[in-house]
This record gives sequence, structure tokens and C-alpha cells, in this order.
Amino acid sequence: MRIDVLSLFPEMFQGVFGSSILKSAAEKGLISFHVTDFRTFSTNKHHRVDDYPYGGGAGMVLTPQPIFDAVQAIKQPDTKPRVVMLCPQGEPYNQKKAEELAQEDQLILICGHYEGFDERIRTHLVTDEISLGDYVLTGGELGAMVVADSVTRLLPGVLGNEESAISDSFSTGLLEHPQYTRPASYNGMDVPDVLMSGHHKQIEEWRAKQSLKRTVERRPDLLNESSLTKQQQTWLKEWKKDV
Amino acid sequence: MRIDVLSLFPEMFQGVFGSSILKSAAEKGLISFHVTDFRTFSTNKHHRVDDYPYGGGAGMVLTPQPIFDAVQAIKQPDTKPRVVMLCPQGEPYNQKKAEELAQEDQLILICGHYEGFDERIRTHLVTDEISLGDYVLTGGELGAMVVADSVTRLLPGVLGNEESAISDSFSTGLLEHPQYTRPASYNGMDVPDVLMSGHHKQIEEWRAKQSLKRTVERRPDLLNESSLTKQQQTWLKEWKKDV
Repeated sequence: MRIDVLSLFPEMFQGVFGSSILKSAAEKGLISFHVTDFRTFSTNKHHRVDDYPYGGGAGMVLTPQPIFDAVQAIKQPDTKPRVVMLCPQGEPYNQKKAEELAQEDQLILICGHYEGFDERIRTHLVTDEISLGDYVLTGGELGAMVVADSVTRLLPGVLGNEESAISDSFSTGLLEHPQYTRPASYNGMDVPDVLMSGHHKQIEEWRAKQSLKRTVERRPDLLNESSLTKQQQTWLKEWKKDV
Repeated sequence: MRIDVLSLFPEMFQGVFGSSILKSAAEKGLISFHVTDFRTFSTNKHHRVDDYPYGGGAGMVLTPQPIFDAVQAIKQPDTKPRVVMLCPQGEPYNQKKAEELAQEDQLILICGHYEGFDERIRTHLVTDEISLGDYVLTGGELGAMVVADSVTRLLPGVLGNEESAISDSFSTGLLEHPQYTRPASYNGMDVPDVLMSGHHKQIEEWRAKQSLKRTVERRPDLLNESSLTKQQQTWLKEWKKDV
């Protein structure tokens, strides 16, 4: 897979694309990252990439020409890239979308920076608009990094067994149970006895219960009762009675 | 304000903290960013920061000692820092939370990297657990950057007028209307006539309608009918009739 980023601040990406798992995935040849400053495609003699909005109003708007031309130039032959715009008007990003994007040969991620996009970019060039969440950022760059990171780790061969085991815990649809490691006592804070008991069935039960409890308390919106075990459904009924 | 990050990959942050608005906010003295590798606080002779989970299972767990000691060391005198853990079990981040965090004197952002945290870190050290959204990342670093970015841009003096005007558009609770800039015609794609008309009332009405339409189509969950104008409520009723 190839991930291209269009940004006016290419230097922002070096640390993230050049560290840890993304770096090693690129070194293994499983993915390549390319960051392009779309200002270099501007045919304007001052290399401007924005202009005032038609109809008036505050703020500047990114013009179509540099972005259309940059996408045309980086598009790989014989592929139909997904062209993704990071913006607050986009669909809220989620794991399902990451899995979908991980199937593509090329992703082109377009980042604005506290400016609007000319609407023709959305309607005639972009295939997907994505928002990280309901908060305001200074630009789309962090969104592009999040998409790149979440997609890369899904590619076959990128994660080792240890790492995938961790992430698989999300696929249960519940939040992960508490984890403890050594020392058994740290400044008067102790590990629960059950985890030290060596009694595997009790440990498994404790974890299933804690996982359910944490989800009920923090993210009831994630609960899908039909995918719970019988035991978890029983706990849930008991807790509801207690309220 | 001071933002501290605890991470095993400090090199990831340079590009984001050293560019654009975050850089200039730091240069103006409105904020300072400090990234600390908590591995340097490990008293283990091999500088280990993780260990196997009690009770068995795959994956490694970050031990309490390096993180407790690092927080103690970077805590500023006479402040009560918010100690924020970035993790999938956290509360979903939103703009209200960003505004709340922007009131603090010091934020300490703790990043794990495809490993769990010993639960005692959550219960005895951390004041807030935050999740960017329902997608899986290789670590908490991008979450820390998102929190730092969204909080910094809220600090007085950080954004110029142009930039704040853009972001204020979110405060209406609706998605932004389409924007267009020059040229009026680009490769056969034209700017809507109304925006070229110079008729300010019609332009305002077109924008209010488009903004509502886009929100209804893309993010009906954001709609709060009571905060709409009378005109917008009328449009909404008409559209519902048409369905």
C-alpha cells in the first residue's frame, strides 16, 4: 500500500512516519509514505494556495487548482486511489472505516490548515470526508496521521503477535478489563488476590466481569447485549436490579 | 500553560510541536511543551518499563514505578496538574473537554504504546482517561498531540482573528456551509450564481440552508432543533414532508 499526504506543513509528519511501527512497516516494504507540499503545484506566481470566499465572510478558502493538480501528479498508474479529506464536516472515523481503507492500493489524504476548502474539491475530487471526532484542531494533519496509523497497523505482517493480541481485545465489543503487573504491592497499592491465585477459571471470570462493568459504567453506548455470554447477561440483570 | 508528555517515543512529537500554530504559541510564551521519555525513570537495571500481566494472558503491561516517578518529577510546584491518560477505555474526547483542559496550569499526558497500563496508574495517579474515538492506534502519542493541539488553540492570544473566525463556525452546532473561491469556473465546474450576485441577504439565506442541509444529511445526531432559527425550523419541516 502507498499512503500520500497533501499538506502545507510536510515537516509535521517526519516524527510520526519515521518512528516505531510505521517506520518498521515502511522498512519491511509493507507500506510507503509520501508527503507532498501542494503549494509547489500552485501555478500562481506568488505560489498562493488560497483566496477570499465568494459571497464574503471571514477566513480564507483553499483554491481548487493546486490540490487537483497535486492529486493528478501523485496518483499511481492503474489504481483508483481513495482521496480522503480530513475535515470537521466529514463522517466520524471508526474502526470499520479503517478496515475498509486498509483494503486499498493507494490512499491520498488531503489536509487543510485552519482554512476552508473550495467546494469543488469535495464534489469532484474527494471520495471520502473524514472527521476524527467532535473537537476542533488547527488543521487536518493530525487526522491524516491517525488514518495512516490506524490503517497501517491493520496490514498483514505489520504487527507482531504480541501487539495484535492486545488490539484483538477490542474486537469483543467491550472495554478491556484491568491489567496488573509486578510488583504485587507498590507503595501500599496491591494487586487483587484473584489474579495471584493461579486459579484460571476464577481469573477468567473476574476479567469478564470487570470488562463488562467498565463498559457499563463508561461506554454503555457500546453494549450489544446479544453478543454477551450467558454469564455476562446474568450479571447485567443482577446489576440492573440493584439500581 | 505547560503541557508535559510522557512517552517512550519522544522523537514522534518534534514535527507537530515544532510547526505552525503550536510553534508560534510556544515562541510567544503562551505555552510550553515538554516531552519526557519515562524509560529514563526506570529503576530497573535494564531500564525495563513493562512486565508480564498477573493472571496470565498475551501482551505486556506498563509497570507503575517509572510512570509514578516521572509524574512526580515533572509536576510543577504549587500546581495540581491534570494527569491525562490516552487510552481506548477513556471517555470520548470532545470540544467541551478541550475547553475544560484549557483552563489548567499544567497538563501531563501519558502515552502507552501497544501495551496495557497497570491499573494502579489509572486509579491512583491519573485524573482523566481520554479516547480520541472508536478506532485503534499503535499508541497514545497521536492522542496526546490532538489534546495538545485542540487545547493550545483555545488559549487567549494563540489564534489571530482570521483563524478564530473559521473555528467559530462550529459553535453554531451545525456543519459549515460550502465555500467557494476563485476562479468562478474551474475545468467546467462553476461557483453557484447566488454567491456571485452580491445580494447579501440571499447569500446569507443560501448559507444557512446549506449548513442545515449538510448537517441533516451527514450528522443528524448534532441537530438541536431548539437552537435553530425560525427559518431553519421551517425548512426542516418542509423537508420532512417531502420524505
